[in-house]
Amino acid sequence: MMPISGNTALMCILADPIGQVRTPQMVNALLQARGTDAVMVPMHVAPADLPDVMQALRRTRNLKGMVITVPHKMSVVPLCDEIEGDAAAVGAVNVVRREPDGRLVGGMLDGTGFLRGLEALGVPVRGASVYLAGAGGAAHAIAFSLAQAGIGRLTIANRSRARIDALARRLTERYPALPVSAGSADPAGHDIVVNATSLGMAPGDPLPLDAAGLSAGQVVADIIMQPAETALLAQARARGCRLYGGAGMLEGQVADMVAFISGRATSQAGEA
Amino acid sequence: MMPISGNTALMCILADPIGQVRTPQMVNALLQARGTDAVMVPMHVAPADLPDVMQALRRTRNLKGMVITVPHKMSVVPLCDEIEGDAAAVGAVNVVRREPDGRLVGGMLDGTGFLRGLEALGVPVRGASVYLAGAGGAAHAIAFSLAQAGIGRLTIANRSRARIDALARRLTERYPALPVSAGSADPAGHDIVVNATSLGMAPGDPLPLDAAGLSAGQVVADIIMQPAETALLAQARARGCRLYGGAGMLEGQVADMVAFISGRATSQAGEA
Repeated sequence: MMPISGNTALMCILADPIGQVRTPQMVNALLQARGTDAVMVPMHVAPADLPDVMQALRRTRNLKGMVITVPHKMSVVPLCDEIEGDAAAVGAVNVVRREPDGRLVGGMLDGTGFLRGLEALGVPVRGASVYLAGAGGAAHAIAFSLAQAGIGRLTIANRSRARIDALARRLTERYPALPVSAGSADPAGHDIVVNATSLGMAPGDPLPLDAAGLSAGQVVADIIMQPAETALLAQARARGCRLYGGAGMLEGQVADMVAFISGRATSQAGEA
Repeated sequence: MMPISGNTALMCILADPIGQVRTPQMVNALLQARGTDAVMVPMHVAPADLPDVMQALRRTRNLKGMVITVPHKMSVVPLCDEIEGDAAAVGAVNVVRREPDGRLVGGMLDGTGFLRGLEALGVPVRGASVYLAGAGGAAHAIAFSLAQAGIGRLTIANRSRARIDALARRLTERYPALPVSAGSADPAGHDIVVNATSLGMAPGDPLPLDAAGLSAGQVVADIIMQPAETALLAQARARGCRLYGGAGMLEGQVADMVAFISGRATSQAGEA
């Protein structure tokens, strides 16, 4: 890495827990390759402390922006002054730009990143049936991008029926033609199975779905970064599924994260 | 530098302006040499924003501590929960440790660092007459350390007579035998001349004292980091004085900064 000086622009990632994040490594490698005098550092912030920390970061004049991850993606929305692009409809933010006057502008790149990773694997998305475990910030973003990309139907599974319904309502407002239903733990009968919960990050976590419903021919995606092969992906491997790990969604958006924080336009997956 | 990961411990330096600081370079080089997984980054924070930023940093769980520099060294004192060592008597703090429970413990290492740099140059301190321009946080720390090291007399010059008197009162409480007087802009007749103001940092700054009073045989010290040779030092060089630049005070305390933030005991200049 380049030496950090008093002129180095600051970026950070807010998360709780923090150890598993891989964004600083990938963003710093990109900044380094481009010769940009900026650095991204991890900040471990608990949910109750997020509002105060965001206010302080707003006032940190050499801060360019931040990446927001679990569990802050939805709670950070009302702490932004402005929301760009899909983030408002999605109701979640994973990247925030600090304007020179201190205004905080939020965006959501998880959906584009997830979709770009699927495209890189050559997975057909248009018309596909998708099983989505989770209804948090990342699940919202992924659902909206899949809907935009023309999937055929979506099943959402989550412990909280209220959160399933909230996500389904948001989706149906924007994509009224997309069939959305609440699912059980069984992912059988879907082309693409996605874990968008944080289950699998901690050792001993239960599986986010019933692995007995997985079979060859399915693509199984997990947004967990660490471990790289979660228990879900290990089960999917044993059953002959195609695997898509958490690094794919991150790799699919790292350049966009840097562009967003730097105030440049980001591209959409599927665009030229 | 080592790659920054989610497990990297965070340190920062708070300053306004920020570009001139050299502490991140020196601290990161030390951390790197020791194989410590930690990084120091600059944070540009205006005086009015310091209280909120300190509260937020208190809640940043992977933050180990921070270095405090101009203009925050005195105003940060009431924002700490505890003050260690000389910092309370000095009334200024330049390093803060964040305990695991979020408590902020302040310390002051400028005086020790300044004195250690003088010792490294072989400058006799005991019995010396010292002219000190400035009455801010760094000036307080330097004055206390010089008094502790047994200088013969101290002259303080500052635009604000009230600040001279405040520093003189603090010093006399602790070192009643030391003659302390308020000085003019003329540093003639002193063995050691110290600029502890921020004058010289910005192009076009006036000199902190009347350079016509400088002469060969004097040691002229400047705490400004950038430029390395300030206008004052250039004048002192032209007059044949011995020079002591801002890097000396920093080099004299970098290891102590890391030790303080890491919760280890620091040594005093002049101790074994």
